[in-house]
Amino acid sequence: MNVPQILATMESSDKDDTKNERPVHLVEREILEQPNVLEQLLKNARGAVEAAAARIRERAPSVFLIAARGSSDNAARYAQYLFGIRHGRVVALASPSMATLYGATLDVRSALVIGVSQSGQSPDILQVIESAQKHGALTLCISNDVQSPLAFASDLTLDIGAGVERAVAATKTYTAELFMFAMLSAALHADNSAWNALARVPEWVDAMLRWPGQTRACAQDMRQSEHWIILGRGYNYATACELALKIQEMAGLVTERFSSADFLHGPIAVVGPGFPVLLCAPTGKALAQFAAVLDELKKRGAHCVILSDDDAFGQRADHWLTLPKDIPEWLSPIVAVVAGQRLALELSRLRGLNPDHPLGLSKVTRTL
Amino acid sequence: MNVPQILATMESSDKDDTKNERPVHLVEREILEQPNVLEQLLKNARGAVEAAAARIRERAPSVFLIAARGSSDNAARYAQYLFGIRHGRVVALASPSMATLYGATLDVRSALVIGVSQSGQSPDILQVIESAQKHGALTLCISNDVQSPLAFASDLTLDIGAGVERAVAATKTYTAELFMFAMLSAALHADNSAWNALARVPEWVDAMLRWPGQTRACAQDMRQSEHWIILGRGYNYATACELALKIQEMAGLVTERFSSADFLHGPIAVVGPGFPVLLCAPTGKALAQFAAVLDELKKRGAHCVILSDDDAFGQRADHWLTLPKDIPEWLSPIVAVVAGQRLALELSRLRGLNPDHPLGLSKVTRTL
Repeated sequence: MNVPQILATMESSDKDDTKNERPVHLVEREILEQPNVLEQLLKNARGAVEAAAARIRERAPSVFLIAARGSSDNAARYAQYLFGIRHGRVVALASPSMATLYGATLDVRSALVIGVSQSGQSPDILQVIESAQKHGALTLCISNDVQSPLAFASDLTLDIGAGVERAVAATKTYTAELFMFAMLSAALHADNSAWNALARVPEWVDAMLRWPGQTRACAQDMRQSEHWIILGRGYNYATACELALKIQEMAGLVTERFSSADFLHGPIAVVGPGFPVLLCAPTGKALAQFAAVLDELKKRGAHCVILSDDDAFGQRADHWLTLPKDIPEWLSPIVAVVAGQRLALELSRLRGLNPDHPLGLSKVTRTL
Repeated sequence: MNVPQILATMESSDKDDTKNERPVHLVEREILEQPNVLEQLLKNARGAVEAAAARIRERAPSVFLIAARGSSDNAARYAQYLFGIRHGRVVALASPSMATLYGATLDVRSALVIGVSQSGQSPDILQVIESAQKHGALTLCISNDVQSPLAFASDLTLDIGAGVERAVAATKTYTAELFMFAMLSAALHADNSAWNALARVPEWVDAMLRWPGQTRACAQDMRQSEHWIILGRGYNYATACELALKIQEMAGLVTERFSSADFLHGPIAVVGPGFPVLLCAPTGKALAQFAAVLDELKKRGAHCVILSDDDAFGQRADHWLTLPKDIPEWLSPIVAVVAGQRLALELSRLRGLNPDHPLGLSKVTRTL
């Protein structure tokens, strides 16, 4: 599988009205590269991941602390559920400003501290890792640049190997970060069935890319909306956060994301007739909880976009973005996010923006 | 200091155009009760807090894990900075769905697990505490009902004693939860200067309540806006989250909250001319970081509302909501949030809503 093949597949598809199109924007090209990036990652990184897992098992940290910003912080949120549910680990998400602004030194002697940054340049993430290193933590860097300062500062480095990402909005580096965390989970358990499931992720992502028509129709119908709400829960809370960020970045729309549980505690009050709400609801433990949320949204006349493989649930949508079937829930965020990346791209174009150059953003944000 | 006195003070103020008004709504009455609630809390709870602190010091947990929902989750976010910066503690915010949906059992043997719930009824928070108790953690409950299931399930209980909260939107229980965490910090350090600073919080909150005219003028000018963005950083990231929730709940407006650092990583793309952005920026380590954000917002023509005691910064605002001076940054979230509670209340009224009964919300949300 490689990018030209994927494009060829798209072009030969008769299920879609986009068959004669070629990607115009960098971000679309990078979205299309994802199956190939993940396939290469599985092939190239397994050894390094297993070696890192061995070091982590040996140290038996009592807590994982993850430092990241932007899309990488959404990947960290996925990791929080992944290592919590599959490994019983307490996972804390670091607030880098504690170190950079307040000079706080955390007691991390029994912690694994993970820095996630596609560029490996973010000075605040670097400072967290350097401080953790000095105070006795085991440190791990997940990055797209293994020559970066973050990689040099860390005990262990895992290379997501996604190739240079040129568009400002992260797409392939986000899915590669999730995939790397998922590989680490498989390696920590030395779990063969997990590795087998991982091997299928590239084809699921590829399948998601073959039918852009659904997201296009949804974007067309909702092009006038000035705001969106995205809901997720459990593993796919990360998906909701990342899709909200993509729509903000690429389409410049006010987009909120909530855990569907928190949503019922207050924020649902903002939803009125026609308000677009996207539910990230693949098959899994979190799906049953969405029925009550959907009922309440329908009562308020919301425009419900459902991202799911579940037929009964999807058929209740105003727009149903279908997922491939039989994806284990813990891997579904890697696949589900792809539909939303496309939705953000389509909304951006329909609003006359250039999705590669969202107003006023730069690729590496040097937050202190 | 008690509630009638505060009202008397308001009525006799000649600095404001609201002097002949009495609170009409429950939520306004509860907002006005806050100085008294905090004063009583300091008087009544110090012994219990010091006893709890002694138990925590004895156990020397390697990580704090806090489970909460809604406004209490924003209080937990404050605690994350508080115990990180002042005590060097790694603080993780629990995702209750890990236990309730996925049946995950976290390794919490070396953790302090804290459940925060004004009602003490939330079944998901209860499940986190019960599971932690069974698996060897030290457990602490912070609640407004010490007869609640959550209180009975916990090793240690701290009563915020705010009196019954009748309005759906939490106000006095939120500030009381923050204040309880701040007292716990003072007790863990056995820090007399911290206790002295805590003793001044009720008067600062009282001062915030004397000049509702500023927030009223701001709400009047911005009454047509359909969405808001609220920014905070460090200790006052919690303030941004809580104010966003208040505006959602009471005024039914789409409101996003960001760390001002994350904001520059993407979401700023949504801001155009006239877009209202509220900056929670009291004096402190986080303030200097806001200058660049404000420059960028001004460049985009945003309508900047600044919540600050800093004269030079405040004068750059389109609306400046002034804070009392000399509040230590770690206590400023307890005071700053009050201006935003009022803003949400005014926006609610101006939009013809009843702030006591936001559409479709109930006081105790029983999330599973």
